[in-house]
Amino acid sequence: MTGLFITLEGGEGAGKSTQARLLAECLRAQGHDVDLTREPGGTPGAEALRELLLFGGYGLSARAEVMAHFAARTDHVEQRIAPMLARGGVVICDRFTDSTEAYQGYGLSHGDPAMLGLIATLRGLIPVVPDLTFMLEVPPAVAQARLAGRGDGRTDRYEAEGAAFHARVAGGFDAIARRDATRCRRIDASGTTQDVQQALRDIVTPLLPHA
Amino acid sequence: MTGLFITLEGGEGAGKSTQARLLAECLRAQGHDVDLTREPGGTPGAEALRELLLFGGYGLSARAEVMAHFAARTDHVEQRIAPMLARGGVVICDRFTDSTEAYQGYGLSHGDPAMLGLIATLRGLIPVVPDLTFMLEVPPAVAQARLAGRGDGRTDRYEAEGAAFHARVAGGFDAIARRDATRCRRIDASGTTQDVQQALRDIVTPLLPHA
Repeated sequence: MTGLFITLEGGEGAGKSTQARLLAECLRAQGHDVDLTREPGGTPGAEALRELLLFGGYGLSARAEVMAHFAARTDHVEQRIAPMLARGGVVICDRFTDSTEAYQGYGLSHGDPAMLGLIATLRGLIPVVPDLTFMLEVPPAVAQARLAGRGDGRTDRYEAEGAAFHARVAGGFDAIARRDATRCRRIDASGTTQDVQQALRDIVTPLLPHA
Repeated sequence: MTGLFITLEGGEGAGKSTQARLLAECLRAQGHDVDLTREPGGTPGAEALRELLLFGGYGLSARAEVMAHFAARTDHVEQRIAPMLARGGVVICDRFTDSTEAYQGYGLSHGDPAMLGLIATLRGLIPVVPDLTFMLEVPPAVAQARLAGRGDGRTDRYEAEGAAFHARVAGGFDAIARRDATRCRRIDASGTTQDVQQALRDIVTPLLPHA
């Protein structure tokens, strides 16, 4: 792959979507070829799976849910992310494999080693790894205040979970950031939108392909 | 597992669904605890994935489609098949993993070794294997005549494929039956419904748990 694959990770209310959008706008203004996307989703089939997973209420088993997330990811990578990287572009993705590990592995399955093993096996089937992952970190109180201010209607199944679940998710992201310390950059996302965005740009700029 | 797990496999128009239903009725009449089910599907989440895969028209990549089939299968096994087997019951399932291998691996992907390898990896994540698989075999002309007589409305994405596709699928089932010769029993399904059903009963009867 010759492009640059950037993912943004973190819990609810960390500001991932806003930061991803601002970063894409900045890089496009500099002349870079940028694809801004998200998971689960990013292709018609993966978006259909997203709807089923986040809002369907079908009660899939924990392992089935993980496999469906990776089915969506496989489609997204093969039909959108990998082709963009192959032609030298920048892909900015709001959530990726780390979210499956944090939410399903640590959050829903409480860090069950068998589930983490399944996720590791499926991760090995995905042919791309992010070049850079921003782990956006905010204290729970800040995250809750941001979520309360959203007012965007639908609450997905993870947003509806309680504080103990979100604490396990945060612990999962922490474990991933320690394990993959080269790829993952921790970002204090409790500051202003502008300050956080500047921190991301400072890290991304030296990695960019020539515009 | 203490129960008996029977799958029926074969191409379109082989009579799997009819034979599965008649076999279930026969065994229930003998006092056995029987669950008749099908794939893709068998649970609410797996049926939702079935709808997405067979009728959604989302154009999932070949690997993503395979993973979504295994996501559905995982839910079906964990929430329905394995619990039934654990309490000593008989599960009769219309299609299972062999269909993924024949349709996706041999039919859609033309026997691509990388795809067959992915299917083998995912098959290894499914915690049950059928005790007995009936491979229902009919000549293409018989299958087409049966399909033409159905008149049941919706045509799924596989039924809509051409003769070359269905020939590859038949070749896939043949390869599986040779490889797993102990589990798989080939059945000439071109005879009458009653004759085929009798052939299945003759094979199943000595394997049944005490009624």
